[in-house]
Amino acid sequence: MTRARLKTYLPILDWLPGYDRQALTNDGIAGLIVAIMLVPQGMAYALLAGLPPEVGLYASIVPLVFYGLLGSSRALAVGPVAIVSLMVATTLGQIAESGSAGYLGGAILLAFLSGAILLGMGMARLGFLVNFLSHPVISGFSSAAALVIGFSQLKHLLGFDIPRSHLITETIGHAVTHISQLNPATFAIAAVSLVILLLFKGRLAPWLKGVGLNPAIADGLAKSGPLVAVLLTTLSVWFLGLNQSAGVSIVADIPAGLPPLTLPGFDLALIQQLLPAALLISLVGFLESVSVAKSLASKRRQKIDANQELIALGAANIGASLTGGYPVTGGFSRSLVNFAAGAVTPLASIITAVLIALTVLLFTPLLYFLPKATLAAIIVVAVANLIDLKTFREAWVYNKADAASLAATFLAVLTLGVEFGIVAGAGLSIALYLWRTSRPHMAEVGRVGSTEHFRNVLRHEVQTHPDVLAMRVDESLYFANTAYLEDELLARVADHPEIKQLVLIMNAVNFIDASALDTLETLVVRLRDAGVALHLSEVKGPVMDRLERVSFSAKLGKGNIYLSTHDAIQDLTSQHASGPPLTRSGERVAV
Amino acid sequence: MTRARLKTYLPILDWLPGYDRQALTNDGIAGLIVAIMLVPQGMAYALLAGLPPEVGLYASIVPLVFYGLLGSSRALAVGPVAIVSLMVATTLGQIAESGSAGYLGGAILLAFLSGAILLGMGMARLGFLVNFLSHPVISGFSSAAALVIGFSQLKHLLGFDIPRSHLITETIGHAVTHISQLNPATFAIAAVSLVILLLFKGRLAPWLKGVGLNPAIADGLAKSGPLVAVLLTTLSVWFLGLNQSAGVSIVADIPAGLPPLTLPGFDLALIQQLLPAALLISLVGFLESVSVAKSLASKRRQKIDANQELIALGAANIGASLTGGYPVTGGFSRSLVNFAAGAVTPLASIITAVLIALTVLLFTPLLYFLPKATLAAIIVVAVANLIDLKTFREAWVYNKADAASLAATFLAVLTLGVEFGIVAGAGLSIALYLWRTSRPHMAEVGRVGSTEHFRNVLRHEVQTHPDVLAMRVDESLYFANTAYLEDELLARVADHPEIKQLVLIMNAVNFIDASALDTLETLVVRLRDAGVALHLSEVKGPVMDRLERVSFSAKLGKGNIYLSTHDAIQDLTSQHASGPPLTRSGERVAV
Repeated sequence: MTRARLKTYLPILDWLPGYDRQALTNDGIAGLIVAIMLVPQGMAYALLAGLPPEVGLYASIVPLVFYGLLGSSRALAVGPVAIVSLMVATTLGQIAESGSAGYLGGAILLAFLSGAILLGMGMARLGFLVNFLSHPVISGFSSAAALVIGFSQLKHLLGFDIPRSHLITETIGHAVTHISQLNPATFAIAAVSLVILLLFKGRLAPWLKGVGLNPAIADGLAKSGPLVAVLLTTLSVWFLGLNQSAGVSIVADIPAGLPPLTLPGFDLALIQQLLPAALLISLVGFLESVSVAKSLASKRRQKIDANQELIALGAANIGASLTGGYPVTGGFSRSLVNFAAGAVTPLASIITAVLIALTVLLFTPLLYFLPKATLAAIIVVAVANLIDLKTFREAWVYNKADAASLAATFLAVLTLGVEFGIVAGAGLSIALYLWRTSRPHMAEVGRVGSTEHFRNVLRHEVQTHPDVLAMRVDESLYFANTAYLEDELLARVADHPEIKQLVLIMNAVNFIDASALDTLETLVVRLRDAGVALHLSEVKGPVMDRLERVSFSAKLGKGNIYLSTHDAIQDLTSQHASGPPLTRSGERVAV
Repeated sequence: MTRARLKTYLPILDWLPGYDRQALTNDGIAGLIVAIMLVPQGMAYALLAGLPPEVGLYASIVPLVFYGLLGSSRALAVGPVAIVSLMVATTLGQIAESGSAGYLGGAILLAFLSGAILLGMGMARLGFLVNFLSHPVISGFSSAAALVIGFSQLKHLLGFDIPRSHLITETIGHAVTHISQLNPATFAIAAVSLVILLLFKGRLAPWLKGVGLNPAIADGLAKSGPLVAVLLTTLSVWFLGLNQSAGVSIVADIPAGLPPLTLPGFDLALIQQLLPAALLISLVGFLESVSVAKSLASKRRQKIDANQELIALGAANIGASLTGGYPVTGGFSRSLVNFAAGAVTPLASIITAVLIALTVLLFTPLLYFLPKATLAAIIVVAVANLIDLKTFREAWVYNKADAASLAATFLAVLTLGVEFGIVAGAGLSIALYLWRTSRPHMAEVGRVGSTEHFRNVLRHEVQTHPDVLAMRVDESLYFANTAYLEDELLARVADHPEIKQLVLIMNAVNFIDASALDTLETLVVRLRDAGVALHLSEVKGPVMDRLERVSFSAKLGKGNIYLSTHDAIQDLTSQHASGPPLTRSGERVAV
C-alpha cells in the first residue's frame, strides 16, 4: 500500500507529523468549548432518546476518539444528535419500555447495527446513496422532526406526564386537557432557561459588541447560554430544594466512573426487527454528518472523502455500542462551534472526549440537581433552528414539484411517523424526477434568418419548410420517455400528411439506452410505413460511438445522420426541391 | 361534449357511419380465422391458468364485444393470453386448490379487480406508468415466463402428474426421476402435435409458395397448424378410444350453452390478498396489448390512445368477470393474424365473439375427445416465440447495464417467481438509470484552433488557459447528481490552485431542480472561499427563466452568465491578462 493510500485510510498520518504547539493551543480551546457544550446536550439528547442521561455522556467519549483517528474531516464534532435520538426513541418504543434493560440493550444493539451498516457501506463505497435524498425532502423531514422533537419535550417543560405520540395534535390535546396538572416550579425553570438561551443566542453578541467588547470574545460568550442556564437552574434547585418541595424533576444520581464495557446482544429476531431502523438511522446520521463536514472543509479548501467518513462514523458507532452508548453522528451546531473555536485537527475531538471522561469520573455529583426542564429547553432551542420555512418558500417560487415533495415529506413525518415519512419523501422525489424525465420538452425548430442557428418556432421568428419537420428533444432517451417521444412524433406526422422528412436534433441527448434504441429502430419502420424518412442531427460523440456498435446508421434506411441541423435542412430541401420556406413567428406563446 | 371528444370515448362512432360491404367481407374473414385459432388457444390457456377449458371460451365472447365497442385499435384481438394465464395460476395457486369453487371464484374476482384497476388507471390517465418497464426487463421477463409456462406443460405432454413449481429445475427433476410413469399414447399425441405445429409454422408456407400456390393462401394455410393438430388428434383419440384404453387425458364434457352470468364475490380479505397480483396482471396485460396495438396502428398511420385502451381493456375484463371468464388482454400473435387476415374495424372481433358463442352453444360435443396433450403442444409452440436471446445479445453489445437488467429479471423470474421477478426487474432498471444520471459525464473543454467551438480536451487538440477552467456537464442537474458535480468541481480546483475562473457550460442541462440550485449557490460560496469565481455559459431558455425567478445571477457575485463559452473565455482571459494559451491535444484517451 502506498503512503498516499494509507493516508486515505488513516487520515491521522496526514496531520500528526506536522503538529505543533500553536495547533495544540487551538485544538485545546476548541475541545474545551465543545466539551462544555456537549455535557448538557449529550444528557438532553439521551433523555430525548428515552435513555438515562449518562448514556449521552458515554456516547461522547470513545466514539469521538474513534472518529478522530479515522475521520477525513478536521472539524467534525461527533456525538449524540437530536434527529438520530428521536429515531432511536421511535424505534425502541416499539420493542421495550423506556427505562427497562431491554430498552438500553436495544440502544446498544442499534448503535452496533448502525456502525456495521456504515462500515459496510464505506467498504462497498456506497456513500453516493445519500445523494438520493433531495434537499427539499431533507428540509421537510428536518422541519417535521424538529416539531416532533420539540413537542416531545412538552412534558419536561410543563412538569407532568404526556404519553409519547408521533401525532403532535395528540400531544397538544393531552397537554391542554390536563393543564391543571402543570408543575409551576418546573414551568418557571423551563421559562427562565428558554429566556436565557434565546437572549444569549440572539441578542447578547450584538449588544456586547455594541458596548465595545472584542467581537471574538463576544461571540464566545454568546455561546455560553446553555452553561449559564444549567448553572443558574441547578443552583436554584439545590438551594431552594425544589426537587423535594416543588416536585421538580432532576437528573439525580449519575453513576460515577468511566463508561462500562458492553457487548450488543445478538438476538437474531431482534436484529431483524431493528435492521430497517438502523439503516435509516445510518443514512440520516451520515447525511447530517457529511453535509456539515463538507461545508466546513471547503472553507479551508480541504476535501472530504464520503466513503472514509462512512468508515469513521461506522467505527464511532461500534465504539458507542462497546461502551454503553447509543447511535452517534457528526452534529451540525456542535461542529460549527468546534470550527469557529479554532479546531484545526481531530485532536480537538479527542481533547473533548478526555474532558467528558473526566466529567463522568469526577463531576457527576455536580449534575445531581440539574433540572430536566433545563435540558428540555436546550433541546427546544436547538431544534428550533431546524424548522425551515425559507426552503419551502424558495422551492415554491422556483419549482412547484420540489415544493410538493417538501410538503409531502413534512406531512408524512407528522402524520405517519419519522421513518415512514423520510422513505415516502425519498420515494416521491424520485418518482417526480422520473415523471419529469418521462415527458421531455420537445420543440419544433426553424432557421433564424439566414444564420445557421435553429430555434423553437414558438419562441422565435424562424423559417420552416412544409415537408421537413425538425424536432429537438431536450432529454436523454431512456425507457421511460421513449414511448412519449414515439407518440409525439407519430402524432405530428399523422396530423401533417405533407411531412416527408423528420429531423431529430440530438444535441441535448446525452445517452440512449437499449429501450430507446429499440424505439428509434421501430420509429424508422413506422415512419417509413407512413412515407416519412427519419434523420438525426448533432449526435454527441459518446452517443454516436454506441450507435455505431449496432450499425444504427444502416438501420436508418433512407435516413441520414447529419453533423449539424443546418446541413440536414440544406440537404433535405435541395434534394426534394421544396417550395419557398415559410416564415413563422412564435405563433403560440406556450413552451 | 364535442363530437370529436365523443369519438375518443366511443371509437365506434368513428368507423360505423362509413361501414360498407367490402369492410364487412374483410372483417368477416378475419373474424372467422381468429375464431378458429382462438377456440383451442382459449381452452389451452384456461388449462394453463388451472381453470376448466370452457372458462377460456367464455373469456373469448363478451370481453371481445366490450373491447370492440370501446377500443381505439382497429385490429387488436382480445382474449386469454399465455403470460396472464400463468400469472393467474401463480396467484390463485396460493389461495385455493385448482378445480375448486374457490379457485374459479378467485379467477372471476381477479378479472373484476384487473378490470377495475385498468378502468381506474384509464380515467386517471395513468397509461404512462407502463413506460417504466424497460424493454430489456420485458424481454427478460417474457423469456423466463415462457420457460416457466413451457415446463408447466410437461405434465400434459408426458401424461403424468408433476407438482406445480415455479422452479424449472424442480419440474425437470421430478419428470426425470418419475419418467417410468410416462404415458406412451399421450406422449405420442404430444409429439405428433408438436411436429405438425412446427412444420406448419416454419416450413409449410415456403414450400407451398415453392410449388406455385398464391402466397396469401399459402400464408393462410400455414396458420391452420393448430386446427389440423386438433382435428387429427381428436379424431385419433375418438376412433382408437385412447382415452379409455391408453389413459389419454381429454378435455371431455364441456357444458353446452352460453356463458353463465357471474358476480365476483366481494370478500374484503380476499380482495386485499389478490390486489397486488391484479395490479401486476393489469400492467403486464396492458403492456402486451398496447405494444401490439401501437405496432399495428402505425402500419396504417392510425393512432392508439393509451388511456382509451385502458378503459376498453378494463371494460373487457369486467365483462369477463360477469360472464364466468378470467383476466384477458390483447394477444400478440392473435392480433397479428387478425390484422394479416384483413380486419379493418373492431367488428372483426365482434364476429369472432359471435362464432365462439355459437361454438359453446352447439359444438362443444365435438371437443369432447380433444386431448389435453394437443393443447399443451399449442401452448409450448406459442410461448417458444417469446424466448428472446437476440435482445440480450444486442443489449450486451450496445449497453452492458441494459443487458444486466435483462439477465437479472430473467433470473429473478426463474428463481423467485413471476410477480417478484418483474417487480425486481423494474426496480433494478430504474435504479440503474438513477445511478447513471447520478454520475454525469463531465468534460474539460478547450477552444478548437481559432474557431468559436469548444471541445473535450481529452478527445481534441484544443487551447486552454491555466487560470480558467471550462467544464461541460452532460446531464440535467438534480438531487442525485448535484453532490457529484460539486465534488468533481471542488476536487479539480483543490488540485489546481492556479485556477481563478471556473466556467460551467450548461448547453446539455435541460433542468435544474431545487437541490441542484442549492448546490450551485453553495458552490459559488465554496469556490469564492477558495479564491475562484464561478461563471455559467450557454444556459438554455427554460432553465434561465427559472433561475431568474430566484435572481440567481445576483447570487453569482463576481461570476457572470455568458451567452456563449467563447464570450466567456474571451472576457475572462482579457480581463485578467492571462498568459498565452496552452495547446493540449487529447492527453488521455479515456473519456
